[in-house]
Amino acid sequence: MNFNLPLNTDRLNKPRMNGVTMVLDKGLSIKETEFFLENAAPYIDFIKLGWGTAVIVPNLETKIKLIQSFGVDVYFGGTLFEIFILKNMFKDYISIVKKFNLKHVEVSDGTISIEHSDKCDYIKQLALDFTVFSEVGSKDEKVEFGIEKWVEMMEHEYAAGSQKLIIEAREAGNVGIYNDKGEVKTDLMEAILNKFSAENILWEAPAKSQQSWFIKKIGANVNLGNISPTEVISLETLRLGLRSDTLLHFH
Amino acid sequence: MNFNLPLNTDRLNKPRMNGVTMVLDKGLSIKETEFFLENAAPYIDFIKLGWGTAVIVPNLETKIKLIQSFGVDVYFGGTLFEIFILKNMFKDYISIVKKFNLKHVEVSDGTISIEHSDKCDYIKQLALDFTVFSEVGSKDEKVEFGIEKWVEMMEHEYAAGSQKLIIEAREAGNVGIYNDKGEVKTDLMEAILNKFSAENILWEAPAKSQQSWFIKKIGANVNLGNISPTEVISLETLRLGLRSDTLLHFH
Amino acid sequence: MNFNLPLNTDRLNKPRMNGVTMVLDKGLSIKETEFFLENAAPYIDFIKLGWGTAVIVPNLETKIKLIQSFGVDVYFGGTLFEIFILKNMFKDYISIVKKFNLKHVEVSDGTISIEHSDKCDYIKQLALDFTVFSEVGSKDEKVEFGIEKWVEMMEHEYAAGSQKLIIEAREAGNVGIYNDKGEVKTDLMEAILNKFSAENILWEAPAKSQQSWFIKKIGANVNLGNISPTEVISLETLRLGLRSDTLLHFH
Repeated sequence: MNFNLPLNTDRLNKPRMNGVTMVLDKGLSIKETEFFLENAAPYIDFIKLGWGTAVIVPNLETKIKLIQSFGVDVYFGGTLFEIFILKNMFKDYISIVKKFNLKHVEVSDGTISIEHSDKCDYIKQLALDFTVFSEVGSKDEKVEFGIEKWVEMMEHEYAAGSQKLIIEAREAGNVGIYNDKGEVKTDLMEAILNKFSAENILWEAPAKSQQSWFIKKIGANVNLGNISPTEVISLETLRLGLRSDTLLHFH
Repeated sequence: MNFNLPLNTDRLNKPRMNGVTMVLDKGLSIKETEFFLENAAPYIDFIKLGWGTAVIVPNLETKIKLIQSFGVDVYFGGTLFEIFILKNMFKDYISIVKKFNLKHVEVSDGTISIEHSDKCDYIKQLALDFTVFSEVGSKDEKVEFGIEKWVEMMEHEYAAGSQKLIIEAREAGNVGIYNDKGEVKTDLMEAILNKFSAENILWEAPAKSQQSWFIKKIGANVNLGNISPTEVISLETLRLGLRSDTLLHFH
Repeated sequence: MNFNLPLNTDRLNKPRMNGVTMVLDKGLSIKETEFFLENAAPYIDFIKLGWGTAVIVPNLETKIKLIQSFGVDVYFGGTLFEIFILKNMFKDYISIVKKFNLKHVEVSDGTISIEHSDKCDYIKQLALDFTVFSEVGSKDEKVEFGIEKWVEMMEHEYAAGSQKLIIEAREAGNVGIYNDKGEVKTDLMEAILNKFSAENILWEAPAKSQQSWFIKKIGANVNLGNISPTEVISLETLRLGLRSDTLLHFH
């Protein structure tokens, strides 16, 4: 803190299980990553290399090591997992994650169809070597699950070893937990929080209105993801009551 | 100018009282600030460190000195002032602004409630040491003032010593002087311009449609604020008639 | 490719006539350009210096040489051509394009009125020295041509020597080939593809939904333009089936 300003003090510092911020990287270069983290690393727990960008960005190994050197964990987007599954290359996927020395794996079925029992098996196997995050919800706005089904799938994935259940929203924030206006489906959210500790849920919340909604509803230490690199400082001010949207909530 | 192209020539150069461009910084790092200003500094008068970002960005002093070294003035967002007021720390606020060697202060009440006579008192006190900009308009889209009330408050703030009256729009450009579609409320704008010199008004105008609207209405040297760092060059081309939106207006 | 992952293999590499990606530059600085290209250059064929930004960005010559040193061609936006025509400075424009050692010229009439026979004459003259891209479609959403007229103008421009016909969309992607919701006018698109090889058409497609629409309709090697610097890696993943939107289309 730059000033002696008494703030909302229940905000947890890194390393933490609660209140994590996950950033969505869409393919930043080495220098762009370095200059952005120089400032924002203290406020970031995870960087997700979005979908299959890791396949084509130059200097992937350097990039991963750079991010890790800032005390930030990094993992591949769930869509990359799905591509390997689609090609029957699950073992190759494990090798690659190990080769790049990643500690986290995201398991999802937002694009391809996987039997849910198979998805849970993948989670089980991966949980032997990695911390698994699993994502529920389709990337297709036309695919919707009922609330009961949604929560039931989450329970199975949690039982299989998933440590954080990620609630889908995409980069645009208009599917999964949100309606097509980007507003939270509160009945789904409440059903989820009835069954799980907030610590085990990571809400994708790319829009500021979504971030401040969750912070006011769940608290400064809600887990939020798909944050744009340019919005990390803004998000932290929302968590601390330093921006209009949450100021009066915390003071 | 890179070519010998006869342009709209009434555009003023820095330093200027009219035609200023104020950029909204959401927490850029030192390097990001440096590389952006390398290009855009000739076209920027002020950088506002948005809301309470100054509390948490690393290397704040270095950042402020860097911006000033480019011939650009820097000041804290009005929300930071409001937080100090809310905590009864007005004197601490003055100390901090002095400590960082800032010449400008923004006074606002967009989030917290301040008696308007108190707000004017703050302006008076701050005007002894700093150039004061004061902002009128709530950040809450549900709070609206009538036009007469709005203009009357502005007159009191101007009388108290505010040198530029900032017209609220937020980062999104959908409150204050704009309706929820981001369109200018022309009756409010005209009432303001009936009472004040355009030189004393700074319009927050984050969207390109808003920028070109004001440029065509008021001229190349309208004061515009809350400009994204990535839009500074674009805005200057709008002021000079070098982009489609204003090209025929100036030629 | 970072992994041995069998991909959609008909994607062409640079240099190529088909499947080009054209980026819209809004005034990046030297360093910003360098750090962005460090990563994205293998996936970019052209950088267009948007509208009249080239008039005011510092170090223009350095910037152009830097871009070329990355194996990326660079040219001025069509609006700059229009400004020189408006001022009866066509010969000066040719001199400037030569002075900066550019190989491509964009001819457009999106803002000013030019007799179409005159536009074709400009194309003819410029084709003697440069590769000409010409753009059809107004930047004003109120100006619309019938489909027949549109295709006929394109045929004349092609006959005059234009090597790529650019389909207007602006930075926002809401005019020309798109309706005001940003959706492709499919009848216009089909009429264009009935008359021209896809190789000769460059679709401006700033939005991800537009990019994936064209990739699914025309293929991985569709020519796309007005891509934001931050979206180049994302676009390439769409072309390769590495992002949800096109994954099942290519696998």
